[in-house]
Amino acid sequence: MAFVYKGAARRGAVWSDAFARRMPQLPFRTWPDVGDAREVRFLATWQAPEDLAQTFPNLEVLFSVGAGVDQFDLSALPAEVRVVRMVEPGLVACMAEYVAWAVLSLHRGAPLYLGQQRRGEWKQHSVQPASTRRVGVMGMGQLGCAALAQLRTLGFDCAGWNRSRREEPGVRCYAGEAELAEFIARTDILVCLLPLTGETRAILNTNVFDALPAGASVVNAARGGHLVEADLLAALDAGHLCAAILDVCEPEPLPRGHAFWEHPRIWLTPHVASETQDETAAAALLDNLRRYHEGLPMQGLVDRSRGY
Amino acid sequence: MAFVYKGAARRGAVWSDAFARRMPQLPFRTWPDVGDAREVRFLATWQAPEDLAQTFPNLEVLFSVGAGVDQFDLSALPAEVRVVRMVEPGLVACMAEYVAWAVLSLHRGAPLYLGQQRRGEWKQHSVQPASTRRVGVMGMGQLGCAALAQLRTLGFDCAGWNRSRREEPGVRCYAGEAELAEFIARTDILVCLLPLTGETRAILNTNVFDALPAGASVVNAARGGHLVEADLLAALDAGHLCAAILDVCEPEPLPRGHAFWEHPRIWLTPHVASETQDETAAAALLDNLRRYHEGLPMQGLVDRSRGY
Repeated sequence: MAFVYKGAARRGAVWSDAFARRMPQLPFRTWPDVGDAREVRFLATWQAPEDLAQTFPNLEVLFSVGAGVDQFDLSALPAEVRVVRMVEPGLVACMAEYVAWAVLSLHRGAPLYLGQQRRGEWKQHSVQPASTRRVGVMGMGQLGCAALAQLRTLGFDCAGWNRSRREEPGVRCYAGEAELAEFIARTDILVCLLPLTGETRAILNTNVFDALPAGASVVNAARGGHLVEADLLAALDAGHLCAAILDVCEPEPLPRGHAFWEHPRIWLTPHVASETQDETAAAALLDNLRRYHEGLPMQGLVDRSRGY
Repeated sequence: MAFVYKGAARRGAVWSDAFARRMPQLPFRTWPDVGDAREVRFLATWQAPEDLAQTFPNLEVLFSVGAGVDQFDLSALPAEVRVVRMVEPGLVACMAEYVAWAVLSLHRGAPLYLGQQRRGEWKQHSVQPASTRRVGVMGMGQLGCAALAQLRTLGFDCAGWNRSRREEPGVRCYAGEAELAEFIARTDILVCLLPLTGETRAILNTNVFDALPAGASVVNAARGGHLVEADLLAALDAGHLCAAILDVCEPEPLPRGHAFWEHPRIWLTPHVASETQDETAAAALLDNLRRYHEGLPMQGLVDRSRGY
């Protein structure tokens, strides 16, 4: 029985140390030095090898090293392989920080003021407190709920939308397709933290943008596939939306010459909203392996029919 | 006995309503319609008239409509006139928001990433959690303490420096000239929220910048007079400091052609970090007038020898 890690060397060194200290009975191997591949029961990676079933015929669990599993072709994986998302507090905390930064930037008109700076213009706009700004987070999983909790400490008027109904203290909660319109209509700053699935692909489109109040803004810290890029550009250029902050696009990197690079009201970050933090992620992985050995449900176990 | 307000008409209308409802016995007059000037005991303004003692010979209290009183020439005011800073929760909350935004922007490398966007560059830098970032706030009055409390909810490693010793939960506190060097040496992101006085003018200078750790950043949301502009440019251009976010300068507006406008690692906002919020400020003023009538100390009463 062995564990294989495929990814950046620095993280591999941290994880290898943690496994040696805390689960020495499970051999930790770093790709491509996997030893006897028939012994490999666990693989942690961002991209699965194309011939996964042949490479590791006895694989039991495939761990994503990131929060999403949309990079895997779930339908191509052997049915008995469990798939697990990365749920670890470091990644969650950094995402909440990013969302706080992006929402504050839009709330305080930072793209407007930096545009003014570039033009040499000193012009004040009135300051509205956060309590008057309605923020709506799409996706109320671990990341969405952490972001909402952080936004509440900043005083924003918070709502969340989720496929199934959730309850969060101090957050107005909307559920499912039936309540999407009502959620969108009361949202000044829309934040997407949904998983990317067949149902959520292209959810940030003209229908949603038109239904946002005039002057609204958008943050996408989920996946590029959630956004219909031409629809965003149209809504910004029509003056209906005010600005957008995007951490993701499709494909990544954003192609040269793409309109997003130079758009004065789009701020781009290169998929750095959050990142799995090596130490806390090692602890989360080891905890999940213990749970698996003890027959307990793993944190972040993916329902393959649902896609997350 | 009368109260005179000199300032923007919109705020005057809100305050006039609040006074009529809650202190109808005190006539509220809006500059320049001050009626019999000898009746005027209270003046709320940003700039005092030059001939204040002649204009309002019976003035008892001069209220600043902003958080500072550095715009007044305190030495030119009659000795018996009390001077009061604006201390009101709306202004404090908006300042805490701005500081949270500015510190998050520097913590997450936003000026770096927007520079990359302008150059069409998609390059990731590692994500460090807020807990590893040492933020230091100079000035632990109402604004500084509110900013520190907000920064703590974001997980930053927080310290504060103040002329006299303060205690704040979860904040490493430094006091006076003697502990300034130690405070500066442990600060990755330095935030200035000091009052502007003879002692604090030009406090953000080469000595401080050189003593910050390499790669540190600076936020000035206090007064332009705190900053020696040439020293900041030198520290940025030498590569010792990483970036700066400035809400204030001296004079304002920043003159045309000034190096700050086009500096790639300086973000400017036009003195909009916070703003007195009309409703909460009316309540604070009325509360102070009640305290004054009852012989209680007013909130924000200035020690004229100290300058704040």
